[in-house]
Amino acid sequence: MTVRMALLGAGRIGKVHAQAISGNHDAELVSVTDALPEAASAITAQHGGEVRTLDEVAAADDVDAVITCTPTNTHADLIEKFTRLGKAVFCEKPIDLNIERVRDCLKVVKDHNGRLMLGFNRRFDPHFSAVQREISNGRIGAVEQVTITSRDPGLPPADYIAVSGGMFRDMTIHDFDMARFLLGEEITTVQATASVLVDPEVEKLGDFDTATTILVTASGKQCTILNSRRATYGYDQRIEVHGAKGMLSAENHRPVSIEVADQNGFSKPPLHDFFMTRYTAAYEAEIAAFVATVRDGIAPSPSAEDGLMALALAEAALKSVAEQRVVQVSEVL
Amino acid sequence: MTVRMALLGAGRIGKVHAQAISGNHDAELVSVTDALPEAASAITAQHGGEVRTLDEVAAADDVDAVITCTPTNTHADLIEKFTRLGKAVFCEKPIDLNIERVRDCLKVVKDHNGRLMLGFNRRFDPHFSAVQREISNGRIGAVEQVTITSRDPGLPPADYIAVSGGMFRDMTIHDFDMARFLLGEEITTVQATASVLVDPEVEKLGDFDTATTILVTASGKQCTILNSRRATYGYDQRIEVHGAKGMLSAENHRPVSIEVADQNGFSKPPLHDFFMTRYTAAYEAEIAAFVATVRDGIAPSPSAEDGLMALALAEAALKSVAEQRVVQVSEVL
Amino acid sequence: MTVRMALLGAGRIGKVHAQAISGNHDAELVSVTDALPEAASAITAQHGGEVRTLDEVAAADDVDAVITCTPTNTHADLIEKFTRLGKAVFCEKPIDLNIERVRDCLKVVKDHNGRLMLGFNRRFDPHFSAVQREISNGRIGAVEQVTITSRDPGLPPADYIAVSGGMFRDMTIHDFDMARFLLGEEITTVQATASVLVDPEVEKLGDFDTATTILVTASGKQCTILNSRRATYGYDQRIEVHGAKGMLSAENHRPVSIEVADQNGFSKPPLHDFFMTRYTAAYEAEIAAFVATVRDGIAPSPSAEDGLMALALAEAALKSVAEQRVVQVSEVL
Amino acid sequence: MTVRMALLGAGRIGKVHAQAISGNHDAELVSVTDALPEAASAITAQHGGEVRTLDEVAAADDVDAVITCTPTNTHADLIEKFTRLGKAVFCEKPIDLNIERVRDCLKVVKDHNGRLMLGFNRRFDPHFSAVQREISNGRIGAVEQVTITSRDPGLPPADYIAVSGGMFRDMTIHDFDMARFLLGEEITTVQATASVLVDPEVEKLGDFDTATTILVTASGKQCTILNSRRATYGYDQRIEVHGAKGMLSAENHRPVSIEVADQNGFSKPPLHDFFMTRYTAAYEAEIAAFVATVRDGIAPSPSAEDGLMALALAEAALKSVAEQRVVQVSEVL
Repeated sequence: MTVRMALLGAGRIGKVHAQAISGNHDAELVSVTDALPEAASAITAQHGGEVRTLDEVAAADDVDAVITCTPTNTHADLIEKFTRLGKAVFCEKPIDLNIERVRDCLKVVKDHNGRLMLGFNRRFDPHFSAVQREISNGRIGAVEQVTITSRDPGLPPADYIAVSGGMFRDMTIHDFDMARFLLGEEITTVQATASVLVDPEVEKLGDFDTATTILVTASGKQCTILNSRRATYGYDQRIEVHGAKGMLSAENHRPVSIEVADQNGFSKPPLHDFFMTRYTAAYEAEIAAFVATVRDGIAPSPSAEDGLMALALAEAALKSVAEQRVVQVSEVL
Repeated sequence: MTVRMALLGAGRIGKVHAQAISGNHDAELVSVTDALPEAASAITAQHGGEVRTLDEVAAADDVDAVITCTPTNTHADLIEKFTRLGKAVFCEKPIDLNIERVRDCLKVVKDHNGRLMLGFNRRFDPHFSAVQREISNGRIGAVEQVTITSRDPGLPPADYIAVSGGMFRDMTIHDFDMARFLLGEEITTVQATASVLVDPEVEKLGDFDTATTILVTASGKQCTILNSRRATYGYDQRIEVHGAKGMLSAENHRPVSIEVADQNGFSKPPLHDFFMTRYTAAYEAEIAAFVATVRDGIAPSPSAEDGLMALALAEAALKSVAEQRVVQVSEVL
Repeated sequence: MTVRMALLGAGRIGKVHAQAISGNHDAELVSVTDALPEAASAITAQHGGEVRTLDEVAAADDVDAVITCTPTNTHADLIEKFTRLGKAVFCEKPIDLNIERVRDCLKVVKDHNGRLMLGFNRRFDPHFSAVQREISNGRIGAVEQVTITSRDPGLPPADYIAVSGGMFRDMTIHDFDMARFLLGEEITTVQATASVLVDPEVEKLGDFDTATTILVTASGKQCTILNSRRATYGYDQRIEVHGAKGMLSAENHRPVSIEVADQNGFSKPPLHDFFMTRYTAAYEAEIAAFVATVRDGIAPSPSAEDGLMALALAEAALKSVAEQRVVQVSEVL
Repeated sequence: MTVRMALLGAGRIGKVHAQAISGNHDAELVSVTDALPEAASAITAQHGGEVRTLDEVAAADDVDAVITCTPTNTHADLIEKFTRLGKAVFCEKPIDLNIERVRDCLKVVKDHNGRLMLGFNRRFDPHFSAVQREISNGRIGAVEQVTITSRDPGLPPADYIAVSGGMFRDMTIHDFDMARFLLGEEITTVQATASVLVDPEVEKLGDFDTATTILVTASGKQCTILNSRRATYGYDQRIEVHGAKGMLSAENHRPVSIEVADQNGFSKPPLHDFFMTRYTAAYEAEIAAFVATVRDGIAPSPSAEDGLMALALAEAALKSVAEQRVVQVSEVL
């Protein structure tokens, strides 16, 4: 069975998913919808499918699933709408910036036995997923300390920051999900520190650009997340897991693995400068997992609850920064 | 313009090229031909196109180019046939095991202003091509010593060895081409040593499984090729170029870049175990280059002459092993 | 001028310093003192000097400086005693486990224009000091995030833990000093989490074995310290500094840098399993710095104040763990 | 028992050995001899011992062994002289540039049951010796291909080249010995190519500056040596051994293991720029081995025969370059 997909949102991340759908033998791109029809038609020209309005998608009987890549403030409404129509939904993170709204949305999904998968693409990175698999295999014994380094090459535009929900909800949210993926035990407390070191404009927008967060589970497992909106050497994405029997790590992935040695020493090119090239394989595997979910009727993962928990951790981190104390996750849920 | 392609040969390497064609937006897989029609239809089912006989391909007016992945002993005939029909031809190496036959074939290509591109895929590996580009940019000054390490994970089947033309013509031929690609100056002498260390059966087949070859250019630049048919740790493919101003290298490419540390030390998974996964990006770039060649009417590279030269180096290496002396390339051309 | 040294304490770290003194052309080991005379004579037999009582050392006129390697609870008394006698003093960390006692001791040193150098040996590690030098040279611009990974190969004996002052004062204290060394700006707040994950016996002793600490400066620079009393792969000592213009790091130092590749992958031997072999070069450079201090009459570094500050950070970390909040360093000073 | 040593020759390598003797608890530097007494006294001032003439050394009854670091043309005479006097002799390579002279000298050593150890220091490098030990342990099965990369940071002075015996006898000789050390089977044939690429002056001196040599054993094991008198990135000293079960390698040793990442990529400092800093640990272990030889009356290794064999391989390589053919080692022995 081929899973027939309608893409909602033809922006940057929409293109990434269209590419992944087009390369997947079990998926078909049926339609693309965007407020700007020319953005939609640019994608259909390359990957097939028709340009449709949202109403046309809702009315269509040739769509099994929707891929939601629209602005964040539309996510919850679209999830509810297409869940009620019986469609499987893949939604980019976050479901909403407001945790109450997320909870309401998840209730709708639950009440309708909806199938909602969240776009935490990094779980599908072949290197990171290999780390998780080795943990599951007991390769390093019980997990004790997880370290996630996650630095963007540069600040997003000010108008993006203004609507992003802030660094913790927009950027660290991926790391919160990764922490949960690797720790294998629910997080109970959060403490964080956050600064503006990259650009004073960020402070005016009420946001941060540099943050360090500690997450702890009930049994005392610790996870540290190191974030910066600046990394001159490229998109810095590493994980390290220390356990009772050893340590597992996934180094940065290099687009070109050459080295030059000369009188100045040994040098390698910078890292990927963009999440799309860094995580190409992850996006492909993510769509493949969603396709399998829809086709085989299995429970989506990362789930709606994973989306909720990551957002709750972001809330708790913000609260910790504001109140200068350790915050219980239960305080924000 | 979309370049319309007919694939000849639906074996292992044929599938690789079908996949690359299907992923290329400027190419179309029009047909697949194989002595076993079910092998051909397995490819068309996945990547599109019709199953056709060789005569049908020759008679078709919807084919711009043929991709020749048939057994070696058919290459020269097919090149000549489709060149005479005015088609561009991409041919897997080698053109023929007999250097006279190659020369005759190249004459036909030349007489008909044919467009023939040889399948030396490694030139298109992003890491190796980056090395070549940096050399061209003068990054390490004049090249002085090139070292190519090229070890297969394991011996091919005995019946393949029997018709392969031997290790130098079958395996080292890729390294001979890489040497020419990187040295930037024609090779004038060859000396080699070859042993049977992996499996005594290889000796009965009149072949070798372990070889070291030194190539030298007129100005004294040196290239060493290290070959083995055995590498327990995976497909070992590295290059290192030493020049007047520094050194350039391309390390092995790892399918999963994780590391585990425990009481036994630090360990990383083995390399790719197959040329198809190791060189996936190279095969894609190779087809893209061929498409550009056909579409834009530019000269194919690697060219027919590159195919001839690599074969001549293999002949010279064999002669050197037999006669225990340095062989001039001019002796075999 | 040769600096004549009296070693107080002939235990494990005493031997390390005796070795460093004996290898330094500008230093002479005049005497060794220990409650167990045979421990002292074992050192003099190998490195020269006489066995003397503490009174004899105090009365001697051939001693320029004392090296204090006795148990922690004697440090402050010995510093005061020999400072009053006009000797330069090198003292292993910490000065005392009680911050008030440290303050009193430092007052004596100050009142007598004493010369006191603290044994934060890691500042003298050639790799770590190269990182600090590159920061000072502006190589990565303003420092933004420092990450210190510091894991011991295994738990110390229970009776050592009982008198050690706890993990933060005994182990993390080195990392607190390293943080100050690298941040280049005084730390204003501390937050930490600590668990017992390695051995439940540690909890009975009122200590921790796994901790993560965040330090922040007035301008918002962040430093994270990752500690564990367990690392199956050896003594894990790494630093990474992220700045406005780039990142600097010092990887673990390997005793034997060989690699084995086989069907299980690529593997390297474990790290050093002991601080003495890991930091041999650091101990040598540390003694050389102390010798220069005494000989040239320059101010010792790390100074008495550095010792006080590192202890204050340990106090603040403990308070943060107990009170589950961010602690101002000014609260404990 | 302390082994009492007389150092002959107070040049660069003499200083290296004096340092190693002074750091060895079982050795004593009794005297230093040099045509320039001030060179000798510079060493005794730092490391102890008296300045003596050669005659005084010969007459002395407080000398167990001599360390010969004089010019090459004096080696054979000194070996014979002190062997006849019953002293153990450590001699820097080569014994002589003339293979007949070496043979005569070895006869004298044999006739007097002399104890002669050759200064092939690289066997004692902790990384290279670990490789050899792992081979002996069967870690990679039967050895099949050895690759030795050995590049000097820069050309020696012209007057040194003029008396050096040429690149193969002066520089590659260390690699010939390493090849024998690792192959574990005697070498039967040699083929080599050599060029002048670094400096045309070298050609005027009748020497080469860039060479590649292939050595083969009776059973077909292959060893490749890559040499250059130029390496802008430092002293390039690597070995790689490929066997039936896997591969062993020893990478370059770095004086400072830091890395800087910025917009230009990731960079590490150059390698050691001098053999003395690169091989410090090797020189210490070498003297320790010689001390043990003398003290315990065991057979020295590397032996006089190892010195002869390495020189024979140099002769064979020169002959191969001249005659453009594979040379049997038996032709030159």
